[in-house]
Amino acid sequence: MKRPLILVVNDDSITAKGIRFLIRIMNDFGDVVVVAPDTPQSAKGHAITIDKTIRCEKVIIDNGPQLEYACSGTPADCVKLAINKILEKEPDLCVSGINHGSNSSINVIYSGTMGASIEASVEGIASIGFSMLDYTDDPDFSESEVYIRKITKQVLETKLTSKVCLNVNIPKSIIGKKIKGLRVCRQANAKWEEEFEERIDPKGKKYYWLTGKFVNYDKENDTDEWALSNHYISVVPVQFDLTNHTSLSEINKLLLNE
Amino acid sequence: MKRPLILVVNDDSITAKGIRFLIRIMNDFGDVVVVAPDTPQSAKGHAITIDKTIRCEKVIIDNGPQLEYACSGTPADCVKLAINKILEKEPDLCVSGINHGSNSSINVIYSGTMGASIEASVEGIASIGFSMLDYTDDPDFSESEVYIRKITKQVLETKLTSKVCLNVNIPKSIIGKKIKGLRVCRQANAKWEEEFEERIDPKGKKYYWLTGKFVNYDKENDTDEWALSNHYISVVPVQFDLTNHTSLSEINKLLLNE
Repeated sequence: MKRPLILVVNDDSITAKGIRFLIRIMNDFGDVVVVAPDTPQSAKGHAITIDKTIRCEKVIIDNGPQLEYACSGTPADCVKLAINKILEKEPDLCVSGINHGSNSSINVIYSGTMGASIEASVEGIASIGFSMLDYTDDPDFSESEVYIRKITKQVLETKLTSKVCLNVNIPKSIIGKKIKGLRVCRQANAKWEEEFEERIDPKGKKYYWLTGKFVNYDKENDTDEWALSNHYISVVPVQFDLTNHTSLSEINKLLLNE
Repeated sequence: MKRPLILVVNDDSITAKGIRFLIRIMNDFGDVVVVAPDTPQSAKGHAITIDKTIRCEKVIIDNGPQLEYACSGTPADCVKLAINKILEKEPDLCVSGINHGSNSSINVIYSGTMGASIEASVEGIASIGFSMLDYTDDPDFSESEVYIRKITKQVLETKLTSKVCLNVNIPKSIIGKKIKGLRVCRQANAKWEEEFEERIDPKGKKYYWLTGKFVNYDKENDTDEWALSNHYISVVPVQFDLTNHTSLSEINKLLLNE
Protein backbone atom coordinates (compact mmCIF):
# COMPACT_ATOMS: atom_id res chain seq x y z
CA MET A 1 0.00 0.00 0.00
CA LYS A 2 1.22 3.49 -0.90
CA ARG A 3 1.95 5.72 2.06
CA PRO A 4 -1.24 7.72 2.66
CA LEU A 5 -1.42 11.49 2.77
CA ILE A 6 -2.95 12.66 6.06
CA LEU A 7 -4.25 16.17 6.75
CA VAL A 8 -4.22 17.15 10.44
CA VAL A 9 -6.28 20.05 11.74
CA ASN A 10 -7.82 21.16 15.06
CA ASP A 11 -9.58 24.09 16.70
CA ASP A 12 -7.44 24.68 19.79
CA SER A 13 -4.62 26.11 17.62
CA ILE A 14 -1.52 24.56 16.13
CA THR A 15 0.50 24.56 19.36
CA ALA A 16 -2.11 22.81 21.55
CA LYS A 17 -1.03 19.61 23.26
CA GLY A 18 -3.85 17.62 21.60
CA ILE A 19 -2.77 18.28 18.02
CA ARG A 20 0.92 17.72 18.83
CA PHE A 21 -0.02 14.29 20.26
CA LEU A 22 -2.12 13.47 17.19
CA ILE A 23 0.60 14.57 14.73
CA ARG A 24 3.13 12.26 16.38
CA ILE A 25 0.77 9.28 15.95
CA MET A 26 -0.16 10.17 12.37
CA ASN A 27 3.50 10.37 11.33
CA ASP A 28 3.57 6.57 11.76
CA PHE A 29 0.65 6.12 9.35
CA GLY A 30 1.55 8.38 6.46
CA ASP A 31 2.87 11.66 5.11
CA VAL A 32 1.42 14.33 7.36
CA VAL A 33 0.50 17.90 6.48
CA VAL A 34 -0.83 20.07 9.30
CA VAL A 35 -2.99 23.10 8.50
CA ALA A 36 -4.29 24.42 11.79
CA PRO A 37 -5.48 27.73 13.28
CA ASP A 38 -2.86 30.17 14.56
CA THR A 39 -5.19 31.13 17.46
CA PRO A 40 -7.81 29.15 19.42
CA GLN A 41 -11.04 28.65 17.44
CA SER A 42 -13.17 26.71 19.89
CA ALA A 43 -16.95 26.71 19.36
CA LYS A 44 -16.62 28.13 15.86
CA GLY A 45 -18.86 25.34 14.52
CA HIS A 46 -18.83 25.28 10.75
CA ALA A 47 -18.05 29.01 10.41
CA ILE A 48 -16.02 30.07 7.37
CA THR A 49 -14.31 33.40 6.66
CA ILE A 50 -15.92 35.32 3.82
CA ASP A 51 -15.64 38.91 5.05
CA LYS A 52 -11.95 38.98 5.96
CA THR A 53 -8.67 37.94 4.37
CA ILE A 54 -6.97 34.70 5.40
CA ARG A 55 -3.27 34.33 6.16
CA CYS A 56 -1.42 31.06 6.03
CA GLU A 57 2.27 30.69 6.94
CA LYS A 58 4.59 27.70 6.86
CA VAL A 59 5.86 27.03 10.39
CA ILE A 60 8.20 24.61 12.18
CA ILE A 61 7.07 23.69 15.67
CA ASP A 62 8.92 20.47 16.46
CA ASN A 63 11.45 18.21 14.76
CA GLY A 64 8.92 15.74 13.30
CA PRO A 65 8.77 14.92 9.57
CA GLN A 66 5.39 16.66 9.04
CA LEU A 67 4.86 19.86 7.06
CA GLU A 68 2.98 22.53 9.01
CA TYR A 69 1.01 25.64 8.18
CA ALA A 70 -0.57 28.07 10.66
CA CYS A 71 -3.73 29.66 9.31
CA SER A 72 -5.62 32.74 10.51
CA GLY A 73 -9.02 31.24 9.62
CA THR A 74 -11.51 28.89 11.24
CA PRO A 75 -11.04 25.10 11.34
CA ALA A 76 -13.32 24.70 8.28
CA ASP A 77 -11.25 27.38 6.46
CA CYS A 78 -8.10 25.35 7.25
CA VAL A 79 -9.54 22.29 5.51
CA LYS A 80 -10.69 24.31 2.48
CA LEU A 81 -7.33 26.05 2.18
CA ALA A 82 -5.38 22.80 2.63
CA ILE A 83 -7.29 21.02 -0.11
CA ASN A 84 -7.35 23.91 -2.54
CA LYS A 85 -4.02 25.66 -2.02
CA ILE A 86 -1.58 23.63 0.04
CA LEU A 87 -1.87 19.91 -0.70
CA GLU A 88 -0.71 18.69 -4.08
CA LYS A 89 -3.24 15.86 -4.10
CA GLU A 90 -6.40 14.92 -2.24
CA PRO A 91 -5.58 13.54 1.22
CA ASP A 92 -6.54 9.95 2.07
CA LEU A 93 -7.65 10.98 5.52
CA CYS A 94 -8.31 14.10 7.56
CA VAL A 95 -7.95 13.89 11.33
CA SER A 96 -9.00 16.71 13.61
CA GLY A 97 -8.10 17.25 17.28
CA ILE A 98 -7.40 15.94 19.76
CA ASN A 99 -9.81 18.54 21.10
CA HIS A 100 -9.38 19.65 24.69
CA GLY A 101 -13.00 19.12 25.75
CA SER A 102 -16.09 17.15 24.80
CA ASN A 103 -17.66 17.14 21.36
CA SER A 104 -20.21 14.48 22.19
CA SER A 105 -23.99 14.81 21.64
CA ILE A 106 -25.13 18.39 20.89
CA ASN A 107 -21.55 19.72 21.17
CA VAL A 108 -20.98 18.38 17.65
CA ILE A 109 -22.87 21.35 16.16
CA TYR A 110 -20.82 24.00 18.03
CA SER A 111 -17.50 22.26 17.59
CA GLY A 112 -14.73 23.67 15.42
CA THR A 113 -12.97 20.30 15.60
CA MET A 114 -16.00 18.61 14.07
CA GLY A 115 -16.59 21.57 11.71
CA ALA A 116 -13.22 20.68 10.18
CA SER A 117 -14.01 16.95 10.02
CA ILE A 118 -17.40 17.56 8.45
CA GLU A 119 -15.84 19.96 5.93
CA ALA A 120 -13.43 17.20 4.88
CA SER A 121 -16.40 14.90 4.52
CA VAL A 122 -18.18 17.44 2.28
CA GLU A 123 -15.04 17.31 0.15
CA GLY A 124 -15.38 13.51 -0.10
CA ILE A 125 -12.49 12.78 2.25
CA ALA A 126 -12.66 10.24 5.08
CA SER A 127 -12.31 12.06 8.37
CA ILE A 128 -12.10 11.50 12.10
CA GLY A 129 -12.52 14.09 14.84
CA PHE A 130 -10.93 13.15 18.16
CA SER A 131 -11.88 14.88 21.41
CA MET A 132 -11.10 14.22 25.07
CA LEU A 133 -13.41 15.18 27.92
CA ASP A 134 -10.69 17.24 29.58
CA TYR A 135 -10.78 21.02 29.15
CA THR A 136 -7.38 21.70 30.69
CA ASP A 137 -4.26 22.70 28.70
CA ASP A 138 -2.45 19.55 29.74
CA PRO A 139 -4.67 16.45 29.51
CA ASP A 140 -3.16 12.97 29.75
CA PHE A 141 -3.80 11.51 26.29
CA SER A 142 -1.55 8.47 26.76
CA GLU A 143 -4.22 5.81 27.34
CA SER A 144 -6.15 6.89 24.22
CA GLU A 145 -3.19 6.29 21.87
CA VAL A 146 -3.88 2.59 21.27
CA TYR A 147 -7.51 3.39 20.37
CA ILE A 148 -6.59 6.31 18.11
CA ARG A 149 -4.19 3.97 16.28
CA LYS A 150 -6.82 1.25 15.98
CA ILE A 151 -9.52 3.57 14.57
CA THR A 152 -7.09 5.26 12.18
CA LYS A 153 -5.76 1.91 10.92
CA GLN A 154 -9.27 0.56 10.29
CA VAL A 155 -10.45 3.69 8.47
CA LEU A 156 -7.30 3.80 6.30
CA GLU A 157 -7.26 0.09 5.48
CA THR A 158 -10.92 -0.73 4.97
CA LYS A 159 -12.81 0.11 1.83
CA LEU A 160 -16.12 1.50 3.03
CA THR A 161 -19.19 2.01 0.88
CA SER A 162 -18.95 5.71 1.61
CA LYS A 163 -16.38 8.00 3.15
CA VAL A 164 -16.78 8.01 6.91
CA CYS A 165 -16.85 11.00 9.18
CA LEU A 166 -16.42 9.84 12.75
CA ASN A 167 -16.94 11.84 15.93
CA VAL A 168 -14.71 10.11 18.50
CA ASN A 169 -14.89 11.19 22.14
CA ILE A 170 -12.52 9.89 24.77
CA PRO A 171 -13.27 9.84 28.52
CA LYS A 172 -11.06 11.97 30.74
CA SER A 173 -8.07 10.03 32.00
CA ILE A 174 -8.63 8.90 35.59
CA ILE A 175 -5.88 7.15 37.54
CA GLY A 176 -6.86 3.57 38.35
CA LYS A 177 -9.81 3.52 35.89
CA LYS A 178 -9.14 1.89 32.52
CA ILE A 179 -10.97 2.76 29.28
CA LYS A 180 -13.30 -0.19 28.61
CA GLY A 181 -13.08 -0.04 24.81
CA LEU A 182 -14.88 1.49 21.83
CA ARG A 183 -18.65 1.87 21.45
CA VAL A 184 -20.29 2.84 18.15
CA CYS A 185 -23.19 5.10 19.16
CA ARG A 186 -25.76 7.63 18.10
CA GLN A 187 -25.68 11.27 19.21
CA ALA A 188 -27.52 11.63 22.53
CA ASN A 189 -30.40 14.06 22.82
CA ALA A 190 -28.82 16.56 25.18
CA LYS A 191 -28.34 20.31 25.35
CA TRP A 192 -26.77 23.17 27.25
CA GLU A 193 -28.90 25.15 29.64
CA GLU A 194 -27.41 28.57 29.34
CA GLU A 195 -26.73 30.70 32.35
CA PHE A 196 -25.40 33.98 31.01
CA GLU A 197 -23.31 35.67 33.62
CA GLU A 198 -24.19 39.34 33.73
CA ARG A 199 -21.46 41.82 34.66
CA ILE A 200 -21.01 45.59 34.68
CA ASP A 201 -18.04 47.12 32.89
CA PRO A 202 -15.93 50.00 34.33
CA LYS A 203 -18.17 52.47 32.47
CA GLY A 204 -21.31 51.07 34.11
CA LYS A 205 -22.61 49.17 31.08
CA LYS A 206 -23.89 45.61 31.10
CA TYR A 207 -22.12 42.71 29.37
CA TYR A 208 -22.46 38.94 29.39
CA TRP A 209 -20.35 35.80 29.53
CA LEU A 210 -21.89 32.67 28.06
CA THR A 211 -21.77 29.82 30.57
CA GLY A 212 -24.07 26.87 31.02
CA LYS A 213 -24.93 23.51 32.40
CA PHE A 214 -24.99 20.38 30.25
CA VAL A 215 -28.23 18.40 30.49
CA ASN A 216 -28.70 14.93 29.01
CA TYR A 217 -32.35 14.02 28.36
CA ASP A 218 -31.44 10.71 26.76
CA LYS A 219 -31.16 7.73 29.06
CA GLU A 220 -30.78 4.98 26.43
CA ASN A 221 -27.60 2.91 26.36
CA ASP A 222 -26.89 3.34 22.63
CA THR A 223 -25.80 6.98 22.92
CA ASP A 224 -22.40 8.65 23.10
CA GLU A 225 -23.24 10.10 26.53
CA TRP A 226 -23.98 6.63 27.90
CA ALA A 227 -20.72 5.27 26.48
CA LEU A 228 -18.66 8.11 27.94
CA SER A 229 -20.28 8.00 31.35
CA ASN A 230 -19.51 4.26 31.40
CA HIS A 231 -15.86 4.97 30.50
CA TYR A 232 -16.00 3.79 26.90
CA ILE A 233 -14.71 5.78 23.92
CA SER A 234 -17.75 6.84 21.86
CA VAL A 235 -17.68 6.70 18.06
CA VAL A 236 -20.57 8.44 16.25
CA PRO A 237 -20.70 8.36 12.44
CA VAL A 238 -21.71 11.86 11.36
CA GLN A 239 -23.28 13.25 8.19
CA PHE A 240 -23.75 16.70 6.65
CA ASP A 241 -27.24 16.01 5.31
CA LEU A 242 -29.39 17.81 7.88
CA THR A 243 -32.70 16.84 6.23
CA ASN A 244 -35.16 15.43 8.73
CA HIS A 245 -36.21 12.68 6.32
CA THR A 246 -38.78 11.16 8.67
CA SER A 247 -40.79 14.39 8.83
CA LEU A 248 -40.88 15.08 5.06
CA SER A 249 -44.35 13.64 4.50
CA GLU A 250 -45.78 15.32 7.59
CA ILE A 251 -44.43 18.71 6.52
CA ASN A 252 -45.67 18.11 3.01
CA LYS A 253 -49.17 17.48 4.35
CA LEU A 254 -48.95 20.49 6.65
CA LEU A 255 -47.94 22.95 3.96
CA LEU A 256 -49.52 21.63 0.80
CA ASN A 257 -52.74 19.71 1.60
CA GLU A 258 -54.36 22.31 3.77
CA MET B 1 -55.92 31.56 20.52
CA LYS B 2 -53.55 33.62 22.64
CA ARG B 3 -51.33 35.99 20.70
CA PRO B 4 -48.08 34.08 20.13
CA LEU B 5 -44.64 35.33 21.14
CA ILE B 6 -42.31 35.40 18.14
CA LEU B 7 -38.54 35.75 18.30
CA VAL B 8 -36.96 37.24 15.16
CA VAL B 9 -33.26 36.88 14.42
CA ASN B 10 -30.98 36.93 11.37
CA ASP B 11 -27.31 36.94 10.38
CA ASP B 12 -27.11 39.97 8.09
CA SER B 13 -27.49 42.33 11.11
CA ILE B 14 -30.48 44.03 12.63
CA THR B 15 -30.71 46.80 10.01
CA ALA B 16 -30.70 44.52 6.92
CA LYS B 17 -33.66 44.83 4.57
CA GLY B 18 -34.52 41.14 4.96
CA ILE B 19 -35.09 41.24 8.72
CA ARG B 20 -37.03 44.53 8.50
CA PHE B 21 -39.36 42.89 5.96
CA LEU B 22 -39.80 39.81 8.16
CA ILE B 23 -40.46 41.86 11.33
CA ARG B 24 -43.26 43.75 9.57
CA ILE B 25 -44.96 40.47 8.62
CA MET B 26 -44.46 38.88 12.04
CA ASN B 27 -46.08 41.86 13.79
CA ASP B 28 -49.37 40.67 12.26
CA PHE B 29 -48.97 37.20 13.78
CA GLY B 30 -47.93 37.93 17.34
CA ASP B 31 -45.88 39.89 19.84
CA VAL B 32 -42.48 40.25 18.28
CA VAL B 33 -39.11 40.47 20.00
CA VAL B 34 -36.08 40.95 17.77
CA VAL B 35 -32.64 39.89 19.01
CA ALA B 36 -30.26 40.22 16.10
CA PRO B 37 -26.56 40.83 15.48
CA ASP B 38 -25.29 44.42 15.51
CA THR B 39 -22.86 43.59 12.66
CA PRO B 40 -23.09 41.17 9.71
CA GLN B 41 -22.52 37.54 10.78
CA SER B 42 -22.84 35.70 7.49
CA ALA B 43 -21.31 32.22 7.25
CA LYS B 44 -20.88 31.95 11.01
CA GLY B 45 -22.64 28.57 10.98
CA HIS B 46 -23.45 27.43 14.48
CA ALA B 47 -20.57 29.36 16.08
CA ILE B 48 -21.09 30.63 19.62
CA THR B 49 -19.04 33.12 21.64
CA ILE B 50 -17.21 31.54 24.55
CA ASP B 51 -13.92 33.45 24.55
CA LYS B 52 -15.28 37.01 24.43
CA THR B 53 -17.91 39.03 26.24
CA ILE B 54 -21.30 39.66 24.64
CA ARG B 55 -23.08 43.03 24.54
CA CYS B 56 -26.79 43.43 24.03
CA GLU B 57 -28.52 46.82 23.80
CA LYS B 58 -32.16 47.75 23.41
CA VAL B 59 -32.62 49.70 20.18
CA ILE B 60 -35.40 51.43 18.24
CA ILE B 61 -35.04 51.16 14.47
CA ASP B 62 -38.51 51.85 13.13
CA ASN B 63 -41.93 52.73 14.53
CA GLY B 64 -43.29 49.16 14.64
CA PRO B 65 -44.67 47.61 17.84
CA GLN B 66 -41.81 45.10 18.20
CA LEU B 67 -39.14 45.20 20.90
CA GLU B 68 -35.60 45.11 19.53
CA TYR B 69 -32.18 44.25 20.87
CA ALA B 70 -28.88 44.49 18.98
CA CYS B 71 -26.38 41.87 20.11
CA SER B 72 -22.63 41.68 19.55
CA GLY B 73 -22.64 37.89 19.26
CA THR B 74 -23.32 35.33 16.55
CA PRO B 75 -26.85 34.39 15.40
CA ALA B 76 -26.81 31.32 17.68
CA ASP B 77 -25.71 33.56 20.59
CA CYS B 78 -28.70 35.84 19.87
CA VAL B 79 -31.11 32.93 20.28
CA LYS B 80 -29.43 31.72 23.49
CA LEU B 81 -29.40 35.23 24.95
CA ALA B 82 -33.01 35.90 23.93
CA ILE B 83 -34.28 32.73 25.57
CA ASN B 84 -32.21 32.99 28.70
CA LYS B 85 -31.98 36.72 29.40
CA ILE B 86 -34.43 38.76 27.34
CA LEU B 87 -37.73 36.92 26.85
CA GLU B 88 -39.96 36.46 29.86
CA LYS B 89 -41.37 33.21 28.52
CA GLU B 90 -40.47 30.65 25.88
CA PRO B 91 -41.36 31.93 22.39
CA ASP B 92 -43.96 30.05 20.33
CA LEU B 93 -41.88 30.49 17.20
CA CYS B 94 -38.45 31.66 16.13
CA VAL B 95 -38.04 33.05 12.61
CA SER B 96 -34.66 33.85 11.13
CA GLY B 97 -33.87 35.93 8.04
CA ILE B 98 -34.83 36.84 5.49
CA ASN B 99 -31.25 36.06 4.55
CA HIS B 100 -29.74 37.93 1.62
CA GLY B 101 -28.45 34.87 -0.25
CA SER B 102 -29.04 31.15 -0.55
CA ASN B 103 -29.04 28.72 2.35
CA SER B 104 -30.12 25.76 0.27
CA SER B 105 -28.32 22.39 0.14
CA ILE B 106 -24.82 22.47 1.70
CA ASN B 107 -25.13 26.18 2.55
CA VAL B 108 -27.23 25.12 5.54
CA ILE B 109 -24.10 24.08 7.44
CA TYR B 110 -22.28 27.41 6.91
CA SER B 111 -25.34 29.58 7.44
CA GLY B 112 -25.72 31.88 10.44
CA THR B 113 -29.41 32.25 9.59
CA MET B 114 -29.89 28.50 9.92
CA GLY B 115 -27.48 28.35 12.89
CA ALA B 116 -30.02 30.52 14.72
CA SER B 117 -32.99 28.42 13.58
CA ILE B 118 -31.30 25.19 14.57
CA GLU B 119 -30.36 26.67 17.95
CA ALA B 120 -34.05 27.48 18.56
CA SER B 121 -34.86 23.91 17.62
CA VAL B 122 -32.29 22.57 20.13
CA GLU B 123 -34.18 24.65 22.71
CA GLY B 124 -37.42 22.87 21.71
CA ILE B 125 -38.86 25.89 19.86
CA ALA B 126 -40.47 25.66 16.41
CA SER B 127 -38.37 27.64 13.96
CA ILE B 128 -38.22 28.75 10.35
CA GLY B 129 -35.21 30.15 8.52
CA PHE B 130 -36.07 32.23 5.43
CA SER B 131 -33.50 33.02 2.74
CA MET B 132 -33.71 34.55 -0.71
CA LEU B 133 -31.31 33.74 -3.53
CA ASP B 134 -30.34 37.38 -3.92
CA TYR B 135 -27.06 38.54 -2.40
CA THR B 136 -27.62 42.26 -2.97
CA ASP B 137 -28.47 44.75 -0.21
CA ASP B 138 -31.82 45.54 -1.79
CA PRO B 139 -33.65 42.39 -2.93
CA ASP B 140 -37.30 42.52 -3.91
CA PHE B 141 -39.00 40.37 -1.25
CA SER B 142 -42.57 41.40 -2.17
CA GLU B 143 -43.63 38.26 -4.03
CA SER B 144 -42.47 36.02 -1.19
CA GLU B 145 -44.72 37.67 1.41
CA VAL B 146 -47.80 35.56 0.72
CA TYR B 147 -45.72 32.37 1.08
CA ILE B 148 -43.99 33.56 4.26
CA ARG B 149 -47.43 34.27 5.71
CA LYS B 150 -48.75 30.86 4.66
CA ILE B 151 -45.84 28.90 6.15
CA THR B 152 -45.86 30.94 9.37
CA LYS B 153 -49.63 30.51 9.78
CA GLN B 154 -49.43 26.74 9.28
CA VAL B 155 -46.53 26.29 11.68
CA LEU B 156 -48.21 28.43 14.36
CA GLU B 157 -51.66 26.87 14.01
CA THR B 158 -50.89 23.19 13.54
CA LYS B 159 -49.95 20.89 16.33
CA LEU B 160 -47.08 18.83 14.96
CA THR B 161 -45.74 15.65 16.51
CA SER B 162 -42.45 17.43 17.02
CA LYS B 163 -41.23 20.99 16.81
CA VAL B 164 -40.30 21.79 13.23
CA CYS B 165 -37.18 23.50 12.01
CA LEU B 166 -37.70 24.54 8.39
CA ASN B 167 -35.08 25.79 5.95
CA VAL B 168 -37.06 27.89 3.47
CA ASN B 169 -35.32 29.23 0.37
CA ILE B 170 -36.97 31.66 -2.04
CA PRO B 171 -35.95 32.10 -5.68
CA LYS B 172 -34.58 35.49 -6.68
CA SER B 173 -37.34 37.81 -7.86
CA ILE B 174 -37.38 37.98 -11.66
CA ILE B 175 -39.72 40.38 -13.46
CA GLY B 176 -42.30 38.44 -15.49
CA LYS B 177 -41.56 35.10 -13.79
CA LYS B 178 -43.93 34.06 -11.02
CA ILE B 179 -43.03 31.79 -8.10
CA LYS B 180 -44.75 28.46 -8.84
CA GLY B 181 -45.47 27.57 -5.19
CA LEU B 182 -43.92 25.62 -2.30
CA ARG B 183 -42.03 22.32 -2.56
CA VAL B 184 -41.12 20.24 0.48
CA CYS B 185 -37.68 18.80 -0.34
CA ARG B 186 -34.57 17.13 0.92
CA GLN B 187 -31.16 18.87 1.01
CA ALA B 188 -29.41 18.40 -2.35
CA ASN B 189 -25.98 16.82 -2.44
CA ALA B 190 -23.99 19.85 -3.57
CA LYS B 191 -20.85 21.67 -2.50
CA TRP B 192 -18.65 24.69 -3.10
CA GLU B 193 -15.51 24.23 -5.14
CA GLU B 194 -13.19 26.70 -3.53
CA GLU B 195 -11.02 28.99 -5.54
CA PHE B 196 -8.96 30.96 -3.06
CA GLU B 197 -7.86 34.21 -4.58
CA GLU B 198 -4.21 34.77 -3.73
CA ARG B 199 -3.01 38.37 -3.32
CA ILE B 200 0.12 40.11 -2.11
CA ASP B 201 -0.15 42.77 0.62
CA PRO B 202 1.77 46.10 0.56
CA LYS B 203 4.55 44.44 2.60
CA GLY B 204 4.99 41.67 0.04
CA LYS B 205 3.26 38.93 2.02
CA LYS B 206 0.67 36.51 0.67
CA TYR B 207 -2.99 36.52 1.76
CA TYR B 208 -6.18 34.86 0.54
CA TRP B 209 -9.82 35.62 -0.14
CA LEU B 210 -12.21 32.67 -0.03
CA THR B 211 -14.27 32.50 -3.20
CA GLY B 212 -15.79 29.55 -4.97
CA LYS B 213 -18.11 27.98 -7.45
CA PHE B 214 -21.27 26.15 -6.40
CA VAL B 215 -21.58 22.63 -7.85
CA ASN B 216 -24.72 20.51 -7.62
CA TYR B 217 -24.08 16.77 -8.00
CA ASP B 218 -27.70 15.88 -7.33
CA LYS B 219 -29.98 15.73 -10.33
CA GLU B 220 -33.09 14.28 -8.64
CA ASN B 221 -36.31 16.29 -8.58
CA ASP B 222 -36.96 15.95 -4.84
CA THR B 223 -34.18 18.33 -3.79
CA ASP B 224 -34.14 21.99 -2.79
CA GLU B 225 -31.83 22.82 -5.70
CA TRP B 226 -34.29 21.31 -8.16
CA ALA B 227 -37.18 23.28 -6.63
CA LEU B 228 -35.27 26.56 -6.72
CA SER B 229 -34.00 26.14 -10.26
CA ASN B 230 -37.62 25.47 -11.29
CA HIS B 231 -38.74 28.66 -9.52
CA TYR B 232 -40.43 27.02 -6.54
CA ILE B 233 -39.82 27.98 -2.91
CA SER B 234 -37.99 25.06 -1.26
CA VAL B 235 -38.87 23.91 2.26
CA VAL B 236 -36.47 21.44 3.90
CA PRO B 237 -37.21 20.14 7.41
CA VAL B 238 -33.90 20.19 9.27
CA GLN B 239 -32.62 18.36 12.35
CA PHE B 240 -29.69 18.73 14.73
CA ASP B 241 -29.05 15.00 15.09
CA LEU B 242 -26.03 14.55 12.83
CA THR B 243 -25.79 10.78 13.42
CA ASN B 244 -25.47 8.86 10.18
CA HIS B 245 -27.91 6.20 11.38
CA THR B 246 -27.69 4.10 8.22
CA SER B 247 -23.94 3.55 8.67
CA LEU B 248 -24.03 2.59 12.37
CA SER B 249 -23.91 -1.17 11.77
CA GLU B 250 -21.20 -0.89 9.12
CA ILE B 251 -19.02 1.24 11.41
CA ASN B 252 -19.68 -1.15 14.24
CA LYS B 253 -18.47 -4.08 12.13
CA LEU B 254 -15.47 -2.07 10.93
CA LEU B 255 -14.27 -1.09 14.39
CA LEU B 256 -15.36 -3.92 16.63
CA ASN B 257 -15.49 -7.21 14.69
CA GLU B 258 -12.06 -7.04 13.15
